[in-house]
Amino acid sequence: MNERLKKQMKFALEIDKDKNVFRQTHLSGHGRNENDAEHAWHMAIMAYVLKEYANEEIDIAKVMLMCLIHDIVEIDAGDTYAYDEEGKKSQHEREQAAKERIYSLLPEDQKTELQAIFDEFEELKTPEARFVRAMDNLQPLMLNDSNGGADWKYHKVSKEQVYKRQSQTKEGSKILFELTDEILKRHIAQGNISDT
Amino acid sequence: MNERLKKQMKFALEIDKDKNVFRQTHLSGHGRNENDAEHAWHMAIMAYVLKEYANEEIDIAKVMLMCLIHDIVEIDAGDTYAYDEEGKKSQHEREQAAKERIYSLLPEDQKTELQAIFDEFEELKTPEARFVRAMDNLQPLMLNDSNGGADWKYHKVSKEQVYKRQSQTKEGSKILFELTDEILKRHIAQGNISDT
Repeated sequence: MNERLKKQMKFALEIDKDKNVFRQTHLSGHGRNENDAEHAWHMAIMAYVLKEYANEEIDIAKVMLMCLIHDIVEIDAGDTYAYDEEGKKSQHEREQAAKERIYSLLPEDQKTELQAIFDEFEELKTPEARFVRAMDNLQPLMLNDSNGGADWKYHKVSKEQVYKRQSQTKEGSKILFELTDEILKRHIAQGNISDT
Repeated sequence: MNERLKKQMKFALEIDKDKNVFRQTHLSGHGRNENDAEHAWHMAIMAYVLKEYANEEIDIAKVMLMCLIHDIVEIDAGDTYAYDEEGKKSQHEREQAAKERIYSLLPEDQKTELQAIFDEFEELKTPEARFVRAMDNLQPLMLNDSNGGADWKYHKVSKEQVYKRQSQTKEGSKILFELTDEILKRHIAQGNISDT
């Protein structure tokens, strides 16, 4: 096996660990916690199926790839819950170190390419990044909605917190934010998201 | 929510069930059984990273999408193990029924589009389908190799069976078949795959 392929296979095996990074979201049917690999898979398919709702023209291949890799850094950095204000303080630093270690397994050109895709996602400056962020919000919202808002109730999430996060969806897709808003209003009315 | 978006979201929620379809392959580090969503996620990233080894020019967006959806039919049809000869007899019929039910949740144009991508994968007549099949073989082979060939040993898989399956990899990528062959020869020599 040549050196280049050896590196690529080492990376391929390493990312298997993303299947052991569990999130706060639960699968539909009040299932177990979801892991990062499943979440990314789900987002990538949703991005493809919902691409017509992006605010701007998007390169769907880049969007799918960005969905697939956006949480790989969590192999080292762990999942930081959207409403964990303490954890979010060190999140960027932890993820930067992980980004360096994990993508360095690849040949230099692919390391540079995939790190750039990850950075693009983080910076939210392109239409693709904004649409991926919308998927990153909509996918767990959909599952949580299907479970009667159980994750919001458990974490005592407030209206203010959830809108702060979900409002980013608007930058990627106005239409999908309307859907989000409809779902959130229902859960606020039902008391699953606190109104204070 | 308009009718079209309602259908798309129904499909998006339905495919969550693919995370509960477990395969015979185990995660690296002698982990638990892998599920379909994780397997598809892993294949799609591997396809992107290894695309330079495809025998023919490929449309990588189509390849990634094909990886992501190729096992969705198993939500209804269940996973058929590569070496389950009895199960394979009814596999096509079970998967066709599943294909009809699950993709019918989508708007008609997207149903047609995604069913066509699934059919293309099944028929192996395009460069994209052949490369996806190579990934479908290489990804579990890589995990099984990392676990000392435990899945082959457990299922008492023979050299003949494994080469029958893995030889398809050659149609998608000669170079990745060379790697496969190297790995298989090692496991045959070690007695993890029976030589008879």
